[in-house]
Amino acid sequence: MLDDLSVQGPFLDELGEHALIDAIATGVVQQHSFVHKGIGDDCAVMEGRNGTLQLISTDTLVESVHFDRVYVPAEHLGYKAAMVNISDVHAMNGKAHSVLLSLSLPGRVRSAFLEDFMSGFHQACREHDIQLIGGDTTGSKHAIVIGVTVLGEVDPGKITYRSGAAPGQFVCVTGDLGAAYMGLLLLEREKQVFLQNTGVQPDFSGFQYVLGRQLKPHSTRSVVDALAQAGIVPGSMIDISDGLASELLHIAKASNCHIRIFEDKLPVDFETARAAELFSIEPTYAALHGGEDYELLFTVSPEDVSKVKQLPGVTVIGHVQEGTGLVDMVKAEGNVVERVERLGFQHFQDKS
Amino acid sequence: MLDDLSVQGPFLDELGEHALIDAIATGVVQQHSFVHKGIGDDCAVMEGRNGTLQLISTDTLVESVHFDRVYVPAEHLGYKAAMVNISDVHAMNGKAHSVLLSLSLPGRVRSAFLEDFMSGFHQACREHDIQLIGGDTTGSKHAIVIGVTVLGEVDPGKITYRSGAAPGQFVCVTGDLGAAYMGLLLLEREKQVFLQNTGVQPDFSGFQYVLGRQLKPHSTRSVVDALAQAGIVPGSMIDISDGLASELLHIAKASNCHIRIFEDKLPVDFETARAAELFSIEPTYAALHGGEDYELLFTVSPEDVSKVKQLPGVTVIGHVQEGTGLVDMVKAEGNVVERVERLGFQHFQDKS
Repeated sequence: MLDDLSVQGPFLDELGEHALIDAIATGVVQQHSFVHKGIGDDCAVMEGRNGTLQLISTDTLVESVHFDRVYVPAEHLGYKAAMVNISDVHAMNGKAHSVLLSLSLPGRVRSAFLEDFMSGFHQACREHDIQLIGGDTTGSKHAIVIGVTVLGEVDPGKITYRSGAAPGQFVCVTGDLGAAYMGLLLLEREKQVFLQNTGVQPDFSGFQYVLGRQLKPHSTRSVVDALAQAGIVPGSMIDISDGLASELLHIAKASNCHIRIFEDKLPVDFETARAAELFSIEPTYAALHGGEDYELLFTVSPEDVSKVKQLPGVTVIGHVQEGTGLVDMVKAEGNVVERVERLGFQHFQDKS
Repeated sequence: MLDDLSVQGPFLDELGEHALIDAIATGVVQQHSFVHKGIGDDCAVMEGRNGTLQLISTDTLVESVHFDRVYVPAEHLGYKAAMVNISDVHAMNGKAHSVLLSLSLPGRVRSAFLEDFMSGFHQACREHDIQLIGGDTTGSKHAIVIGVTVLGEVDPGKITYRSGAAPGQFVCVTGDLGAAYMGLLLLEREKQVFLQNTGVQPDFSGFQYVLGRQLKPHSTRSVVDALAQAGIVPGSMIDISDGLASELLHIAKASNCHIRIFEDKLPVDFETARAAELFSIEPTYAALHGGEDYELLFTVSPEDVSKVKQLPGVTVIGHVQEGTGLVDMVKAEGNVVERVERLGFQHFQDKS
């Protein structure tokens, strides 16, 4: 008979997520020639049908870690569960076509929750012409756990890896940053008010945009389509799930280069800035470390930069230099360059 | 703000698993021509590389629902998590080549657990020439949740669906049945003894076989290889995860036929029968409803039946007749025919 006390080593919450991923990846010895990319990008990549490359990614959402049913409507949760996975396919410059859904559900969940969840999930699938091809339903003692695996495809000449950034390229982001994080802080604040007095209605007036960004991420599909129409294949691309800083470091390390960004170029919505002021947070902090923006971060060669600037919602925020995995930022005030480090969510440290 | 009380409908544990799957599948409208099979078989099937068909399946194991860390060693858990998925590819007569692993882990789990788990997982991958190509690690409040997605392939001329059974075919199973269930009952018994007096060592003498069948399912790969070598393509095939009765009904319904099996033909190991006696259970009950055998159930045409009988570990247990989704069994004693119904695990009803 085994239990936690009889086994050794540190607790997992004393390790970082990267140490965990290393622990899992260590021991992978099989290498198939038809697998072009295994662990280490937004999707795994392998030879697909009709000469295309197949993209595969999986993401899990755990109740009380990634979402709180007190304030996340089931329909939005279903939509988001699909979107965060679809976004990984877009980050490889591909198109998603199929999805598998695994739901682990406590018996004390109401059937209306499942119906609303599926309604949102199917909506995201319809919007992206994605077929739900399989999955799994199981029970769960405590938490709802949502596992999604997405399949997609891309032409071999158009695929974008994290490792394709090169000196001279420009660094671009889509949309604006930090809003989803501010939405989360607002929801958490109103939850505390609600828990203290369930008669009080939540007050989100003036913050509909940041709230929507947290609850219902928009699609990055239009960016992939716009890039294709403009004839641009980014050098590298990644989706912004853990925060801009974390994703910049992924690209800088995978591409073995030095990325420099400019604080005054970071796209931050006015509502995000106002919410940041309310919580006494620097808007730049929200943009760099907030997470859950589900925008795309990519690099383009100098000859494409004028075309990229004409695409709706794309902002050039920096450039790529010779280097070894470093990211820094020229501050908006003064002639100061600051190193950018990863401060993303540590999921293994419980929030409550 | 939402909570369980404000939404409607029955609790999920008042619905069956089939009602749940229906709730999830309802609303699937996208149908891609390159997807040959979506929801409803052991794997989804779509066009793959080089004219093969690609097989995809996903399964989730939830702590306290599917496994108990008190008596399941982490290494065996890792091995089993891989094997139950690989088995789904074998059930389509295919070969698995890649896998994605999602782990949701509470922070208070020790790192040695993860190392042991991965050791078992990698062992199963090595044995089947499978590459770990991706996955996800997240935190979890309470339970360990293991999500595995497996990819494989099969020649279009060799694929076996649940729907291919036809009148005149014979029904075969590999290995023996009910042992994994008896292993589970023994482990549960010894856990209760252990919880009452932690000084008592578990007593499994004489039951090593059934214990091993619960903790470490063997591979069905040799069956797929043997069928190929003998030049046999089964009419239909499924893996036995929820119990023989449940899987027979899946084939009978998907193929719209009537399956008749013979009680005295069911392969039950001597140790399983002895353990069944100990727990005052009919061995036939364990064979029909026990679950977790991870053997293969398949049907073959009359011209193949003599060849099939020569394959090691294959038993002919019945035949297929004209009908509409019905399964029955000729009892060993007397001239009695009994209807076979599904009594598999209801994961949504908590065990404790």
